[in-house]
Amino acid sequence: MEVVQVLHMNGGVGETSYANNSFVQQKVITMTKPITEDAITKLYCSTYPEEIAIADLGCSSGPNTFFVVSELIKVVDSARRKISQKSPEYQVFLNDLPGNDFNTIFRSLSIFQYKLREQLGPGIGPCFFTGVPGSFYGRLFRKNSLHFVHSSYSLQWLSQVPQGLESNKGNIYMASTSPPNVLKANYEQFQQDFSLFLNCRSEELVDGGRMVLTFLGRRNDDPSSKECCYIWELLAMALNDMVLEGVIEEEKLNSFNIPQYTPSPAEVKYEVEKEGSFSIDQLEVTEVNWNAYQNETDLSDAFKDGGYNVAKCMRAVAEPLLFSHFGEAIIDEVFRRYREIVADRMSKEKTGFVNVIVSLKKA
Amino acid sequence: MEVVQVLHMNGGVGETSYANNSFVQQKVITMTKPITEDAITKLYCSTYPEEIAIADLGCSSGPNTFFVVSELIKVVDSARRKISQKSPEYQVFLNDLPGNDFNTIFRSLSIFQYKLREQLGPGIGPCFFTGVPGSFYGRLFRKNSLHFVHSSYSLQWLSQVPQGLESNKGNIYMASTSPPNVLKANYEQFQQDFSLFLNCRSEELVDGGRMVLTFLGRRNDDPSSKECCYIWELLAMALNDMVLEGVIEEEKLNSFNIPQYTPSPAEVKYEVEKEGSFSIDQLEVTEVNWNAYQNETDLSDAFKDGGYNVAKCMRAVAEPLLFSHFGEAIIDEVFRRYREIVADRMSKEKTGFVNVIVSLKKA
Repeated sequence: MEVVQVLHMNGGVGETSYANNSFVQQKVITMTKPITEDAITKLYCSTYPEEIAIADLGCSSGPNTFFVVSELIKVVDSARRKISQKSPEYQVFLNDLPGNDFNTIFRSLSIFQYKLREQLGPGIGPCFFTGVPGSFYGRLFRKNSLHFVHSSYSLQWLSQVPQGLESNKGNIYMASTSPPNVLKANYEQFQQDFSLFLNCRSEELVDGGRMVLTFLGRRNDDPSSKECCYIWELLAMALNDMVLEGVIEEEKLNSFNIPQYTPSPAEVKYEVEKEGSFSIDQLEVTEVNWNAYQNETDLSDAFKDGGYNVAKCMRAVAEPLLFSHFGEAIIDEVFRRYREIVADRMSKEKTGFVNVIVSLKKA
Repeated sequence: MEVVQVLHMNGGVGETSYANNSFVQQKVITMTKPITEDAITKLYCSTYPEEIAIADLGCSSGPNTFFVVSELIKVVDSARRKISQKSPEYQVFLNDLPGNDFNTIFRSLSIFQYKLREQLGPGIGPCFFTGVPGSFYGRLFRKNSLHFVHSSYSLQWLSQVPQGLESNKGNIYMASTSPPNVLKANYEQFQQDFSLFLNCRSEELVDGGRMVLTFLGRRNDDPSSKECCYIWELLAMALNDMVLEGVIEEEKLNSFNIPQYTPSPAEVKYEVEKEGSFSIDQLEVTEVNWNAYQNETDLSDAFKDGGYNVAKCMRAVAEPLLFSHFGEAIIDEVFRRYREIVADRMSKEKTGFVNVIVSLKKA
């Protein structure tokens, strides 16, 4: 029923899913855990509700899909045990775009539920799982039907590539060489999208309901700063090399833009306050290495290849976009080159993703 | 979280979906329309709720999946227009077993929603769709969270093949030659399953909530009567021929049973009254020809081949069960023989499916 949703499906992240199920993503969820735990505990302990409806927006399909939800349920279960309260019933909404592989999620559900019950014991209340296809830049749920919303590494995706990026030649994202109107158009799209997101969720959450949102973001005020744009600049580098060699048409590259905006904490705060439905409980910035496997022990040599890991992780994110714009033929070659470029840079400088995490309460 | 669900997934209709999306199914839904319309109109006009949560249990994946839901929404929309009421919000839960193809449903959702809005005009409230994987012989939804439940051609499926059918040799379903204990075991499984179904739904429906359930059933008191068993007896005939020719092992056939029970109106009534949560508003029996295309005009000759149509329709239902028990190799041959047998019988006698439809209100 929603125009935004239709638009989003045809643009945005290309009818697939929002978040990538990489090790980076899992590390970020783990880093965010204290904030998430704090939020769900406050939610539960404020009213001890008999049922808790949790939505994970941009749930994707893979090992991380159930990770967040199981952590949330464990926290509530631990809190209710401390005060010998009966377990609430859980309603879990797993949301992603209609192109996400929900079949795989659903088919692994009974094993997940079995394991969860094994871990938590017989006192755990029933958990009802549903899949919700659609863009979160539009209403997805009934009014006042949610208690807790979680979203990780999804909200930096815009609903569409904004108009007016024709002048962003040679770039695929905001870059130091992008004209000011490109930065402006992207920022305005972010403002519009995030504001709509907040508005929709405020209708769907009960009073006192909470959200923990993690953006791929930045610390710097400049949206074209290296900390958020460098990873895309290196991909643009690989693509530009292929233009020079005549493998890709220059026009084709010039018309390609990544529908993403990596906000600063100040920008997130500004939109939340402007929209007005939520109060900010916590707002934090963390950082995770591009190669999330770095510093992990007990790994085989393959995982120590940072260029490989980062290229693989970015491929999961960017491939659907590149595929639909450039076609299948160039994909392997792009990521072969990208891997080399990334490996070279990682050996020479410190590289990381910045995460902006905000914990909100419906006012 | 539910043992029944796990059992059901490993037995029952074989990890796929409940209902088949045949033309028969669509005809049955159309025949049931007056009862369904009456029930949803009574529901809406009793309280004019601002939101209506509808669950279709055994939604399958195909052209019929959205058919029921769109009919229900149209009826409510027509009723609210008559009294110039604002449209409610709709929450639609599409349920089937985890093996159902939810991806296909979700990917066709935006087109369905677009068409529905085109048909009903701009006044229509938002419709939120979710997929709910799991067996309906267990809880699927939160307490008091549903207003209307629909299920067509799904509840005749048992949660599992009951114990003690070893003596049903040469048959694959109840038949005139089945020993009494076979009929008893099937009936008891039906009672247990349907009673559990009613109990779960009574927890999930709000007070005054309604259900319209259509079973593949029978008129006769005898559960092994021809009207419900003949279609399976003909399939058993094809399988027995292949046993005689040594293509199928006799032992293999003897251990195969269809997990189905086609109840009479009296049996449905008895379980509803015994369980006690619902009152019966309507209870009817209708009949549809085995070849649902019969009497249709404007059809090509292919559709007039009754043997082909019925075999195709039954193949959609029975193939997953035969596949998992006998393997892939025999399938084509079974249905080639079945088509011939069915065509022969249809040319000589009147053949039909009996439908038992019950409209219930939560007391």
